[in-house]
Amino acid sequence: MKYELYYWPHIQGRGEYVRLTLEEGEAEYVDVGRLPEAEGGGRPGVAKVLQNTRNRHPPFAPPLLKAGRTVISHTANILQYLGPRLNLVPKGQALRLYAHGLQLTMTDFVREAHDVHHPIANSLYYEDQKTEALRRSGHFRTERLTKFLNYFETVITRGGGEYLLGASFSYVDLSMFQVMASLKYAFPNAMAGLAENITRLNVLHDLVAARPRVARYLASPARLPFSDHDLMRLYPELDA
Amino acid sequence: MKYELYYWPHIQGRGEYVRLTLEEGEAEYVDVGRLPEAEGGGRPGVAKVLQNTRNRHPPFAPPLLKAGRTVISHTANILQYLGPRLNLVPKGQALRLYAHGLQLTMTDFVREAHDVHHPIANSLYYEDQKTEALRRSGHFRTERLTKFLNYFETVITRGGGEYLLGASFSYVDLSMFQVMASLKYAFPNAMAGLAENITRLNVLHDLVAARPRVARYLASPARLPFSDHDLMRLYPELDA
Repeated sequence: MKYELYYWPHIQGRGEYVRLTLEEGEAEYVDVGRLPEAEGGGRPGVAKVLQNTRNRHPPFAPPLLKAGRTVISHTANILQYLGPRLNLVPKGQALRLYAHGLQLTMTDFVREAHDVHHPIANSLYYEDQKTEALRRSGHFRTERLTKFLNYFETVITRGGGEYLLGASFSYVDLSMFQVMASLKYAFPNAMAGLAENITRLNVLHDLVAARPRVARYLASPARLPFSDHDLMRLYPELDA
Repeated sequence: MKYELYYWPHIQGRGEYVRLTLEEGEAEYVDVGRLPEAEGGGRPGVAKVLQNTRNRHPPFAPPLLKAGRTVISHTANILQYLGPRLNLVPKGQALRLYAHGLQLTMTDFVREAHDVHHPIANSLYYEDQKTEALRRSGHFRTERLTKFLNYFETVITRGGGEYLLGASFSYVDLSMFQVMASLKYAFPNAMAGLAENITRLNVLHDLVAARPRVARYLASPARLPFSDHDLMRLYPELDA
């Protein structure tokens, strides 16, 4: 199976969670948005799929994964589909439902971290909602960041291994790496202040980053840098 | 299979999406939070499951569904699990992945509608973030409400039937009903203004409400009223 990923080409964004799984799983895939426009890629290549008025099952937003004639939308839905096919989730229905639940909690976490810099509207610049962002950031750091990270730390502790699902490495660990890496970029002070409480999460981050296929991908030009156009952004005033 | 639903007893909230599916599917279930505290219910009954330190797979938040020894968290995950078991989703993997994607888009939609009255922090009262809420509400109504509703209207149009999956009634229609009912409660002016653009969604809302098992449930004491403690709230100033 040759997969096609459709995601905006200029940010890691939600597509990065899919890329990490495709890379670690050694899947054959095309990152359509990263192809030249002349070859059907770029933003127009992604927009074309979204705007196809003949599609009987229209998607709301990227990322999308095409697997033959099947089109899957939403990051967590895509990862749930890929996990068993790329041997990146253990067997057993209960464990897979648990893994999907963990991924959906990460979805909520990333969304809340994003909304720190955009609490009023995505259509406005950060500068036009900075007052509200400053106010939200304090609550995020002291309440939500702590709560989510403590939760995932507990997940590892309770599982009795180094990974979120215990001794079994899975796609949710790849996603947890990406969440942690993004938070370390956007909230370095807050993350440093929490270090004592999230030792297992920090070990997990490093374990994933050191996996040969992940390390190769992270060092390649395919890995886009973090930036102030991405889901999590380094605005020092929001990490004071 | 006798299911157990764990959700806070005082609001419809995210648990209502699960209740509607259990009711329409004629599932045998206990709504644990609605039992008397003396019988293990109420808020303590729900909190107990969340705080069980012996659980190797801890959940982040309700709703939770227990199905024998399997525990499932996140509304969309629960509905994806129940759909096939209660004959509330068509056969076929591609269609089920599409249904789950639609449900996840509704999750995002409901979350954005909730954040209109809580743009800064869930830990603050509405009154303490009213200025920000007023500002967010304008963007929500003119940009996001319109975008999400137009999307779901298009989903019905493209499917060629009366339901989100075409001619087949499914659990996502029950969820769409709940989204529409909540929006009509919280944003009556905005929804009236959009009526011409969402005729199919309004028909869907009425079709679902008229299904005998749904109608019986909605008329029963089990259906809690909308309120200003719920995900969507009637604050007239946010629907000006």
